[in-house]
Amino acid sequence: MSDTRTPTVDDVAAWWATSVSRIEPGIIELRGRPVADLIGRASLVEVTWLMLRGDLPSPWHARLLEAALVAGVDHGPHAPSIAIARMAATCGVGLNNAVASGVNVLGDVHGGAGQQCVEMLTEICDRADEGDPASLDAAAVTVLAEWRERSPYVPGFGHRFHPVDPRREPLLSLVQSAVDDRAVPGRHLLAAFAIERNLKTRGGDQVPINIDGCTAVIYAELGLPAPLARGLFVLSRSIGVLAHAWEETQSGRRNKGPIPPTILPPYVTQ
Amino acid sequence: MSDTRTPTVDDVAAWWATSVSRIEPGIIELRGRPVADLIGRASLVEVTWLMLRGDLPSPWHARLLEAALVAGVDHGPHAPSIAIARMAATCGVGLNNAVASGVNVLGDVHGGAGQQCVEMLTEICDRADEGDPASLDAAAVTVLAEWRERSPYVPGFGHRFHPVDPRREPLLSLVQSAVDDRAVPGRHLLAAFAIERNLKTRGGDQVPINIDGCTAVIYAELGLPAPLARGLFVLSRSIGVLAHAWEETQSGRRNKGPIPPTILPPYVTQ
Amino acid sequence: MSDTRTPTVDDVAAWWATSVSRIEPGIIELRGRPVADLIGRASLVEVTWLMLRGDLPSPWHARLLEAALVAGVDHGPHAPSIAIARMAATCGVGLNNAVASGVNVLGDVHGGAGQQCVEMLTEICDRADEGDPASLDAAAVTVLAEWRERSPYVPGFGHRFHPVDPRREPLLSLVQSAVDDRAVPGRHLLAAFAIERNLKTRGGDQVPINIDGCTAVIYAELGLPAPLARGLFVLSRSIGVLAHAWEETQSGRRNKGPIPPTILPPYVTQ
Amino acid sequence: MSDTRTPTVDDVAAWWATSVSRIEPGIIELRGRPVADLIGRASLVEVTWLMLRGDLPSPWHARLLEAALVAGVDHGPHAPSIAIARMAATCGVGLNNAVASGVNVLGDVHGGAGQQCVEMLTEICDRADEGDPASLDAAAVTVLAEWRERSPYVPGFGHRFHPVDPRREPLLSLVQSAVDDRAVPGRHLLAAFAIERNLKTRGGDQVPINIDGCTAVIYAELGLPAPLARGLFVLSRSIGVLAHAWEETQSGRRNKGPIPPTILPPYVTQ
Repeated sequence: MSDTRTPTVDDVAAWWATSVSRIEPGIIELRGRPVADLIGRASLVEVTWLMLRGDLPSPWHARLLEAALVAGVDHGPHAPSIAIARMAATCGVGLNNAVASGVNVLGDVHGGAGQQCVEMLTEICDRADEGDPASLDAAAVTVLAEWRERSPYVPGFGHRFHPVDPRREPLLSLVQSAVDDRAVPGRHLLAAFAIERNLKTRGGDQVPINIDGCTAVIYAELGLPAPLARGLFVLSRSIGVLAHAWEETQSGRRNKGPIPPTILPPYVTQ
Repeated sequence: MSDTRTPTVDDVAAWWATSVSRIEPGIIELRGRPVADLIGRASLVEVTWLMLRGDLPSPWHARLLEAALVAGVDHGPHAPSIAIARMAATCGVGLNNAVASGVNVLGDVHGGAGQQCVEMLTEICDRADEGDPASLDAAAVTVLAEWRERSPYVPGFGHRFHPVDPRREPLLSLVQSAVDDRAVPGRHLLAAFAIERNLKTRGGDQVPINIDGCTAVIYAELGLPAPLARGLFVLSRSIGVLAHAWEETQSGRRNKGPIPPTILPPYVTQ
Repeated sequence: MSDTRTPTVDDVAAWWATSVSRIEPGIIELRGRPVADLIGRASLVEVTWLMLRGDLPSPWHARLLEAALVAGVDHGPHAPSIAIARMAATCGVGLNNAVASGVNVLGDVHGGAGQQCVEMLTEICDRADEGDPASLDAAAVTVLAEWRERSPYVPGFGHRFHPVDPRREPLLSLVQSAVDDRAVPGRHLLAAFAIERNLKTRGGDQVPINIDGCTAVIYAELGLPAPLARGLFVLSRSIGVLAHAWEETQSGRRNKGPIPPTILPPYVTQ
Repeated sequence: MSDTRTPTVDDVAAWWATSVSRIEPGIIELRGRPVADLIGRASLVEVTWLMLRGDLPSPWHARLLEAALVAGVDHGPHAPSIAIARMAATCGVGLNNAVASGVNVLGDVHGGAGQQCVEMLTEICDRADEGDPASLDAAAVTVLAEWRERSPYVPGFGHRFHPVDPRREPLLSLVQSAVDDRAVPGRHLLAAFAIERNLKTRGGDQVPINIDGCTAVIYAELGLPAPLARGLFVLSRSIGVLAHAWEETQSGRRNKGPIPPTILPPYVTQ
């Protein structure tokens, strides 16, 4: 507020300056590219990368991002994000509102694990010796120990429902193929394996990498900042949220509650 | 966009001009009143009226508005607005986000009935003969018939759970007292009774005024525009939404879904 | 509530039954397809179609949907959906919350035009004589006249900023190619052209098809229900909303308001 | 999930058990009190306390809570929460959606300071010697130093706009009166003064208690948990958000952006 000169309308325009898009009469550019050059040519995932990074991805980079986005689309009507959107769709609001109420809850517990896992993988890679892959195990053990002091949950590992997450194998084998093709460095994949090797439940059971961990590996390998792991999951899950909200809309139910009206206390609203 | 003169920063300030509040260094005025004159003196309901109408309410007007707001605070954990906020509170978002996801669904079906009922009551009063109360019945029958052509639901009447809404009697007797004291005209109350007299289910049962109808009567008697019936219900229900979200927060549950994990398909997230 | 038999847990499970996805321990199926068969193989747009329609799209159908989604991604920081998300990102909430506050406003005025335009195009096609393309003009004139009685805005036509929307040509020529390849019938495209031919401003100017009209043509040609025009725009715009929210996050601004702090009344919060 | 017995519908009902409200046919109880006993008798603030705490407040407790809620209602159209709701109201969504998009952004930076300040005041009181008021200064200095290591912002102190927040004096003098009447202990008020005495800008200027600090003192004196400082601010600000959204609705603007259309790049949507 030390700025004392008289402000001008240029200051106002500058307040909303952006490098994401340029809009002028008859002109729409996304990251410097005319939208007409993208429509019908670039895939939605390539455009997502372009919007977030400023350039177009290599085929391998696009393929990894696409796989991560496809994998997170839906996990059934009992996920809070989905259940909320289904109930919202019966309350007389638009699909835009139903989707908003649903994705709004993709917070630290429901969707945020990917962001935390990217941070954890990055920390392990930073601490390990660049030249010595084995040092990743030592770093993983240290970081894991520190993490568990803060929380009983290790983000990106274990699933209370799936013994092994069915999305683990296809996602990680795709990353491995990209590593074999030198499309991504692969250190974050090794870091994730290092955690998996060193993580056991009190009962001594394995705690396999889950969907958040797999997508975190992809985002970390692609050099995406941790907060975008959450942001990208929002884009991915929006698709499932919309599909479920739409199915519920067609059911004709009104004011759907969490349990059937036949169960006491009866289902009621207002 | 025909404006061709060079815009100035005054145009920018004017774009955000408001008569609701005035903020300058060391000054906060709400509808022209220094906030210091309101803190500790005006009630929250009086300030709500002030913010929406520009003046302070009479004691009776404040009392009626307060009763309507108190009546809508909560209707149990199975109302979508409440259930959504409870689930949201377990997903690692703030109470602000849990409340937002909850009140966001107070749409045409869940909360919007009050707005529609104010419109219906107003239409009946407009059509009836000012001098002849009996003419309200004729107007009610006509408006009712027109409404039922559009929808099987008559907004503000009947409740799938309560044979008679326990909020009906205290709210309407309060309005009657205000009418007796000449604090409000009372025509919209008569219009609501006229509907109630003329509304039967196919089975011939009575369809009593419900909470939306009672609050609609109050808002209409207070001369509040129909859309504010929805807006004020949002303020009222926010209190219940917050209380339920807070209780759920304290439960320590994570990613609460609509049904217990013990019921197949197991409760799962992501 | 006439159901009198004792409810069971099966009733509860049935309450959340869905045909969108199946989740069991170790199993995730989207519309009957194991997620492992989709990861790394299906594109995000193909999966979007699968989730909404239950099957995978033909290459042409996927291409048209992808083009519509790419075209709506962003329209600059002054679109309310984008501006809201940018401000939200400076208030200490997650990217999930910033995206939610932004897409939540894609209502009847900002984003809903596509839905209304699909309805208008469908109505024209329904009224026109199947065998006689020329009859589309007559139907267009009638529907247009009826529409203008209800509102001064014809959804999907005209843009207060672009003389001709730069997205019009690439989108409609792509639809035309699909028609030439017999991938879509093309009647809704003709209906849109019929409106365009018969729509003039009071000043006699042309009112070209805009982005909402172009995407409405695509959604109608693909046989998607009107409400999904809004739902799909939400998915598309979410990408731009996320990119802008992320850029704003990196700026380090706190509590960004609509105009710069240097303009009186100074930028203030709380 | 170690629960192996067959689940019953009672488990389902229990999943949504709450102590906040009881709803049965013809019965609505809030915290054990029939709603009919509250309508027309309890104030909205008393009911808010009841819903959050389970009992009704003393007159002084209700008065302090009411003052805190009144004080936070509005801070002008440039606060992100307000600006967002005003823009939302022009996009064709309901007032419920406009309010939701607005209060959703009351996060750690915009609205969360009160929660952090309650934590800080509590920490100071916990560290200070119960018997020795002077020890609050020492504790304040320590806690302040620790806090400033983590962040340059001390929550609840200083305002970039108001040299002295006009809400400070009326709020704190009300708390002082309550202390004089032995209605609240007053230690958190002393802790706030201790911070104020020991907090200076680099330039040596005073950094007075702001609205977040004043309401934090009230909430702490009332024994409310820190997260409710945020939750209660949401209730308070919702009133201003609604008033501004309603005013904007009446303007008839469509797709209002942050700056006027006359300023290049022109105001545009979609």
